[in-house]
Amino acid sequence: MIKERIEALRRLMAQWGWDAAITVGEDPHNSEYTPLRWCQREFISGFTGSAGVVIVTPDHAGLWTDSRYWIQAARELDGSGIELHRMVSVENRDWIQWLADNIPQGGKVGVDGLCMSLGDAGSVAAAISAKGASVISRPDYLGGIWPDRPMLPQAPVWLHDTAYAGRSRREKISWLRNVLAERNCRYMLISCLDQVAWLLNIRSNDVDYCPFVISFALVGPEKVLLFASESKFQHTVKQELEQDGVYVAPYSSLSDAILAMKPDGRILIDPETMNYETGKAVSAVFGDGGTEYGTSPVDLEKSVKNSVEIEGFRHAYLTDGIVQARFFHWLETQVQSGVRITESDASDKLHELRAAMPDFLDESFETISAYGKNAALPHYSTVRGKDAILEPRGLYLNDSGAHYRYGTTDITRTVPLGPLTQLEREDYTIDMKAMVDLAMAVFPAGTPGCRIDAIARRPLWQTMRNFGHGTGHGVGNVLSVHEGPQTIRQNLKDQPVVPGMVTSDEPGIYREGFHGIRHENMILCVPAGENEFGQWLKFETLTLTYLDTQPLIASMLDDEEIEWIDNFNSRVYNAVSPMVEPEVAQWLKRKTAGIRK
Amino acid sequence: MIKERIEALRRLMAQWGWDAAITVGEDPHNSEYTPLRWCQREFISGFTGSAGVVIVTPDHAGLWTDSRYWIQAARELDGSGIELHRMVSVENRDWIQWLADNIPQGGKVGVDGLCMSLGDAGSVAAAISAKGASVISRPDYLGGIWPDRPMLPQAPVWLHDTAYAGRSRREKISWLRNVLAERNCRYMLISCLDQVAWLLNIRSNDVDYCPFVISFALVGPEKVLLFASESKFQHTVKQELEQDGVYVAPYSSLSDAILAMKPDGRILIDPETMNYETGKAVSAVFGDGGTEYGTSPVDLEKSVKNSVEIEGFRHAYLTDGIVQARFFHWLETQVQSGVRITESDASDKLHELRAAMPDFLDESFETISAYGKNAALPHYSTVRGKDAILEPRGLYLNDSGAHYRYGTTDITRTVPLGPLTQLEREDYTIDMKAMVDLAMAVFPAGTPGCRIDAIARRPLWQTMRNFGHGTGHGVGNVLSVHEGPQTIRQNLKDQPVVPGMVTSDEPGIYREGFHGIRHENMILCVPAGENEFGQWLKFETLTLTYLDTQPLIASMLDDEEIEWIDNFNSRVYNAVSPMVEPEVAQWLKRKTAGIRK
Repeated sequence: MIKERIEALRRLMAQWGWDAAITVGEDPHNSEYTPLRWCQREFISGFTGSAGVVIVTPDHAGLWTDSRYWIQAARELDGSGIELHRMVSVENRDWIQWLADNIPQGGKVGVDGLCMSLGDAGSVAAAISAKGASVISRPDYLGGIWPDRPMLPQAPVWLHDTAYAGRSRREKISWLRNVLAERNCRYMLISCLDQVAWLLNIRSNDVDYCPFVISFALVGPEKVLLFASESKFQHTVKQELEQDGVYVAPYSSLSDAILAMKPDGRILIDPETMNYETGKAVSAVFGDGGTEYGTSPVDLEKSVKNSVEIEGFRHAYLTDGIVQARFFHWLETQVQSGVRITESDASDKLHELRAAMPDFLDESFETISAYGKNAALPHYSTVRGKDAILEPRGLYLNDSGAHYRYGTTDITRTVPLGPLTQLEREDYTIDMKAMVDLAMAVFPAGTPGCRIDAIARRPLWQTMRNFGHGTGHGVGNVLSVHEGPQTIRQNLKDQPVVPGMVTSDEPGIYREGFHGIRHENMILCVPAGENEFGQWLKFETLTLTYLDTQPLIASMLDDEEIEWIDNFNSRVYNAVSPMVEPEVAQWLKRKTAGIRK
Repeated sequence: MIKERIEALRRLMAQWGWDAAITVGEDPHNSEYTPLRWCQREFISGFTGSAGVVIVTPDHAGLWTDSRYWIQAARELDGSGIELHRMVSVENRDWIQWLADNIPQGGKVGVDGLCMSLGDAGSVAAAISAKGASVISRPDYLGGIWPDRPMLPQAPVWLHDTAYAGRSRREKISWLRNVLAERNCRYMLISCLDQVAWLLNIRSNDVDYCPFVISFALVGPEKVLLFASESKFQHTVKQELEQDGVYVAPYSSLSDAILAMKPDGRILIDPETMNYETGKAVSAVFGDGGTEYGTSPVDLEKSVKNSVEIEGFRHAYLTDGIVQARFFHWLETQVQSGVRITESDASDKLHELRAAMPDFLDESFETISAYGKNAALPHYSTVRGKDAILEPRGLYLNDSGAHYRYGTTDITRTVPLGPLTQLEREDYTIDMKAMVDLAMAVFPAGTPGCRIDAIARRPLWQTMRNFGHGTGHGVGNVLSVHEGPQTIRQNLKDQPVVPGMVTSDEPGIYREGFHGIRHENMILCVPAGENEFGQWLKFETLTLTYLDTQPLIASMLDDEEIEWIDNFNSRVYNAVSPMVEPEVAQWLKRKTAGIRK
């Protein structure tokens, strides 16, 4: 099937005079999760990983992907005639070099400009320019050979109430207009779905786990045009939006609308996230002088939560604290009494408990429910029927979260199901030490996350342990569970962590074939005071799910670390126990008793 | 006097048709210490600080400098008619903005292109281009109004023996030619004095504290041209250089030599450090395609010390360990027995003890000898007659170093001269904790210094203390005491710390009006092993000067920190005590006794 698709694409390429076609798996909005309609890389190659580039030429078809996916890609590409090109990391752009080397003089490289960022298209164009070759954009070029291509999602739009958002749509739009004026701009075109959702206080279920509306927002001095499927809007919703100067226009009319604009002022677009096709239309109308390529101010503003949003987070973590006390009580009781529980059963039970809570909307990402050595796989996803049975020994890892109407959660707990090995206990202790050290960190205002990262990693590094993912990501408020601009991770990035940001604290230790451990709390950045050395910040932990202290080797912890864990568990007990069944409360009391030294 | 100089400059400007003249204090080699000949900023303004820009226009004269120098500049500019423009930090380029705002349409901005980097000249040109204004370079333009301008230094050149360098001149040149070939270059023009000195194993005393030869090196496929004052070279030195294909040419003939080159291959220059005038000449001859603007490979290669150099460092720290045991023994004895000792007396004594050691060449920087509150000033320099008398109480800080023929040192010790306040003891303890934590750090291969920095700062941050300088800088081997490319500091920079690099470990705590504390050791990066999590690095401390444990509050230190300090002091005692006078050895035994908990 893949072979036929590649051949069909080659016939189109011959017709259009293309010497190469690039297919990526992104959508027009630079989303983390791609709606099915835009899973073009998977359609053309059969490869289901989340990162990679397919290049087809008349005599070669290749997939470039990074080490996370080498094994999976080799299996999925088998028999397709597509060659696997192994990249050392996502940052490697070997495929661009390959194009530059292999494109003929004066050649044409075809792309779907809607699904490629301005930056990527620019890098390709620059790399092939030495050969006089150029990039040709043809939106949806696979459409003609993809008869059963999924449509745009049609889930209804709902309004995110100011009671949860803390700021009204009007206030936010007015804030943005002021910022635009300061930046000498009259317009801004927003393509990121979470930014549109935040700005307009709208939500929908177009994308799994992400309550977004697939749309673009064109903010002008008098009105905001929201390009989206009109059928998604109930009359009352449309009316309320229009009262605030927000008008819905057909999703597909964006290009025409841009081309019809009068460039009576400058326009801001974010080149990091704007797609090539739309960016080109903007610069065709506004010109280089009229287009401000800059970071979207929405991204930072959105990450700094207001007091209503922070209350929403607190509420959500209390809800999940209740849910997870019930869940882990159930799990431990079942497994230890010999009931057959699989990873999927555990996942299902957790969903059932969450879904029973008022104002539950959705999981905020696919639950990772992993027992024993499965937890050591960085991208483990539980497949029903192929999943492990939980035994009364070793460690079980659960990484999950929810969107409630008032807030979003993301929590990882690793819990013992019975006796542990010495190595499991050591890793468990060191990883908790890391999480607690970051939670206790004090740092000067203005410090970027990449400089704080070593504070979490130090306990691991000192014992020559490490993990390959970031230590912390921002979390959106009923938006994406992964949001920027701040990160606490190895990559150098100068965005400071500022008061109001909500970030995860999730160091891990993974031993292939043995076990995987991750403890994840959510931390809110708050002021810590001011003195002659400057202004100081610290974190307040929002999570209210207990930490299992039984596997801890107390002698490996400092007094402050032990005190922190005990205080945390007391706080959990005090908040959660009045809200749960007596047997769960009793069990939680034992779980949250102080660490014995 | 300054007023007359400004007027004389204005007459020249009128003659040349300049609308503004920029004067900076850098030399043509991007050196840290500027030889007197190029102290042009000081000549034109009277300002003696190490950073600042003077701009003179027909109706304005201004000095832009950062907060370190505001007080000093205000005093030094008094009566000169030059206005002080306060910049928040060195990175601020307010002066460029001022120029862009104040230069007339089509105006001319004059600079001494030899003393301005390619990058700075480019930034100025870009900023004023909107007004059609341009940069005019006129090397040494102040020469005509500076009759007693210092000449180029004429100190003799000596050869740095392979027995100390570890690699011969021939090997290094051949290494560089291979690297150039890999980068598709035939030539490289080196302007940084430490890079020339390292590559050719030559030294001199042209620059205070830096044993450099003021010169440029033009490396070609067959020979190396060394542009320097010919009178500095003895016949035998010249002969030995020529045997290795290195030929001396007049310093002032560089431009002509470049302009006479045949561009029969590409040339590498480092735009970060190359001066504008010379860079322009290179690109005039080689064109854009023939000029490779890139980081000098010498910088990294030089920073990774070979085993001979490392032995040299060890030897130098043992020598300084002996010197400083004698010095601090003398100091403590004198002060506590009531002898009147000033900061300068202490400095002099330390110099005398160092100069008595075989193979002593020079101090590696100006000794900071600071008592009590003087130590809290970031740039304290002891002025004889105005310096403090050391009292038998409080803390004394000494930051000093030497070049021996075999290695370079840089050591800071803060020692108690008698009773201390509780705050002095707390700061002393926390700062030592910071230094020790960095010395004990283990980290993954590939980690940049800016990510390690927080490990040293954490003990300070947790108690809301901090310091404004970097935690660590590279140290050259009988070269500059401050060298790159690695740093352990707040600024984000992606250069990893690699095995063989020698870096300082010097956190500090400064309280204006009270005291200043800094503990500084030198740390060598070494492998720590390899496991399933990757390759690991750690540090080995090279310094052999004891750490005074008497002020420490033991309860604020971890067991590992106490063990580290005790081990360090034992190592110092074992190495140093056999080499010093019996009374010093006895005293050192007491000083290095274990910490009492």
